[in-house]
Amino acid sequence: MENFTYYNRTKIIYGRGTEKEVGAEARKLADKVLLHFGGGSIKRSGLYDIVVASLREHGVEIVELGGVVPNPRLDLVREGIELCRRENITLILAVGGGSVVDSAKAIAMGVHEENGDVWENFISRKPIQKAVDVATILTLPATGSEASPNTVITDDATQLKLGYGSELLRPVFSILNPELFFTLPRNQIANGVCDMMCHIFERYFTLTPKVELTDALCEATLRTIIDNAYKLADNPQDYDAWAEIGFAGTLAHNNLLGLGRVQDWASHGMEHEISALYDVAHGAGLATVVPSWMRYVYKTDVARFARFAKNVFGISETAPDGTSRDDEALALAGIDALESFWRKLGLPTTMSELGIPDDSRFEEMARKAVLARSSDGKEIPQGNFRKLYSQDILAIYKMAEGSGRE
Amino acid sequence: MENFTYYNRTKIIYGRGTEKEVGAEARKLADKVLLHFGGGSIKRSGLYDIVVASLREHGVEIVELGGVVPNPRLDLVREGIELCRRENITLILAVGGGSVVDSAKAIAMGVHEENGDVWENFISRKPIQKAVDVATILTLPATGSEASPNTVITDDATQLKLGYGSELLRPVFSILNPELFFTLPRNQIANGVCDMMCHIFERYFTLTPKVELTDALCEATLRTIIDNAYKLADNPQDYDAWAEIGFAGTLAHNNLLGLGRVQDWASHGMEHEISALYDVAHGAGLATVVPSWMRYVYKTDVARFARFAKNVFGISETAPDGTSRDDEALALAGIDALESFWRKLGLPTTMSELGIPDDSRFEEMARKAVLARSSDGKEIPQGNFRKLYSQDILAIYKMAEGSGRE
Repeated sequence: MENFTYYNRTKIIYGRGTEKEVGAEARKLADKVLLHFGGGSIKRSGLYDIVVASLREHGVEIVELGGVVPNPRLDLVREGIELCRRENITLILAVGGGSVVDSAKAIAMGVHEENGDVWENFISRKPIQKAVDVATILTLPATGSEASPNTVITDDATQLKLGYGSELLRPVFSILNPELFFTLPRNQIANGVCDMMCHIFERYFTLTPKVELTDALCEATLRTIIDNAYKLADNPQDYDAWAEIGFAGTLAHNNLLGLGRVQDWASHGMEHEISALYDVAHGAGLATVVPSWMRYVYKTDVARFARFAKNVFGISETAPDGTSRDDEALALAGIDALESFWRKLGLPTTMSELGIPDDSRFEEMARKAVLARSSDGKEIPQGNFRKLYSQDILAIYKMAEGSGRE
Repeated sequence: MENFTYYNRTKIIYGRGTEKEVGAEARKLADKVLLHFGGGSIKRSGLYDIVVASLREHGVEIVELGGVVPNPRLDLVREGIELCRRENITLILAVGGGSVVDSAKAIAMGVHEENGDVWENFISRKPIQKAVDVATILTLPATGSEASPNTVITDDATQLKLGYGSELLRPVFSILNPELFFTLPRNQIANGVCDMMCHIFERYFTLTPKVELTDALCEATLRTIIDNAYKLADNPQDYDAWAEIGFAGTLAHNNLLGLGRVQDWASHGMEHEISALYDVAHGAGLATVVPSWMRYVYKTDVARFARFAKNVFGISETAPDGTSRDDEALALAGIDALESFWRKLGLPTTMSELGIPDDSRFEEMARKAVLARSSDGKEIPQGNFRKLYSQDILAIYKMAEGSGRE
């Protein structure tokens, strides 16, 4: 186990009806909020009215900024920053899914960067010294942004999609009511399940030795996600299943499961290049790239992938034909089981299923994945489990073209 | 899953050499600290010198209060409260095990209770409005007090041992360096392992249905504790094993594993009566009372105890003689496995092994367990998995007299 420091200030308010507590919670922190949201779904569902009523009941003034889209855009972030400065906003309330939360965080980090544009922080990873508080009401469990220090933003002008992290960006409180997830369409449920599983994979697949507790916690959380994703496939209004999935999604990315471990994050990096160019859903992009990533890298530590197969998917050391499986066979069976599970949820696992018609931009994507933050043209590899350069990433994209199998 | 709110402000600083960070961390919060500790062990080990040097290096003034004993006493708490008031202390640094941390928390909660004695809060559970900050450097992983909102104090005058909880008592930071645990004697290691396991049991044995994620996290943490306790029995200087155990001890009681669940806490209540009268180690007292508690209550939910046996101790549904085990047989085999594991660590599992010579005070202890906080003489039962009145508690104490088996 590596040394670590862990501080997670996000207050989680979880369960039925908890969205009605937003006014009382917000009032402890501010007398005016920026209410940040996406399109009309929170108005159609009635959530918007509940939130506004609760805020008003507690005397919290509201400034509105809607219009966040999936793969949230830098332009709206810049607009939000200006608005916060003009209105002296000290608390941004994000009501929506991970895109809304990420957009709110990017606004929060930019308000006090008076001498530069917020995008410079994304490119240089220059630390911020101060941020406006962010709070959330989550409508789609997936990104874990509700309790993480991270945000991912897309700049349309340069087609760059970049992440940024600062402990100052952990939300001050996040409200999760599983009932709010009942109306999500099946593809969004599947995307969310995939995203949260991948947040765990980025931590689980490590070369750090002797990290038994977090290994076991990762496996426990993955099994819970899988079991309950099947239940939601049967009944998207299963409160108990949503309660498990929503909680697991927060845990998957608040970094408890990654403490003391060198983490990977190559899959997220490779996916960001896809969704930056093609505007596909992040979860769907991950489902496409991750099985190929696994097949490309598993030999780096076959035993870890064998353990994954056994402890997450219950793959037996005895094959159906009675022969015994070695670590190699277990590892490959585990990857197959993951891909099969995602396909059952309706997720794409090939580029063509994802709607990417040809490989004409793979080289460009592979280059951007390792050069976006390079100042001298030298490749900065993605990942740590195995360091991936542009030629590796290109190979993985190509593997994902077909069946996703070598 | 029940609704819950979770807020854990404790910053955990974990790993080799981290005790040297104390001065820098403390300086962010205060320019003077009350340095609170036990006997001479931190002086003999050299930790005291390191801490003092680090505090001085960062210009932090030190006021000292040593002398905390196991089952920490109210008298010293009162002395600490007076000292903090006199010296205008705003940060108490507890350097030691759970007793030192608990003593620091009780001081912290009493400083601003100007109109009454702190013990009144323990008896009435009246909420505090304000507390002095507490930080810790842990020298014995066991009680989880380094990241919990709880404290337990003993009043010698009335032989009452009572707990108290407030979110204001969660430490602001806690430093854990597994190397500091290398010199612990085997009985203290075993007591600590038992205590942290019991913190999970108090949460795991619940009647709340459908709490799959926390069930799986509890089981994962318990398995990790057991595996690594065996490693420490072989080699008490195994850094990797200590790193897992230390982290597990924090997780066992920071309440992540208990979210959304009705918790039990009868075993702790019953044990407190033992250690209040006989001044035995808390972990040893728990090892004595818990197997009997389990055998007394398991029929309340045999399936849960069967699951415990399978998922924590790997008890097979097929017995060694080839017959299949039903839930009842699994449950009892799981309890036997737990008792056997604790005995292998050298823990007492009977009252006589614990050094309690006869049953002459069992009735008194059973009565106090349900009457200490009663204002009208009506019994307030212990526990939730099964509510235990004085006659139940007496029966459990008597079961623990002999072999611990019915």
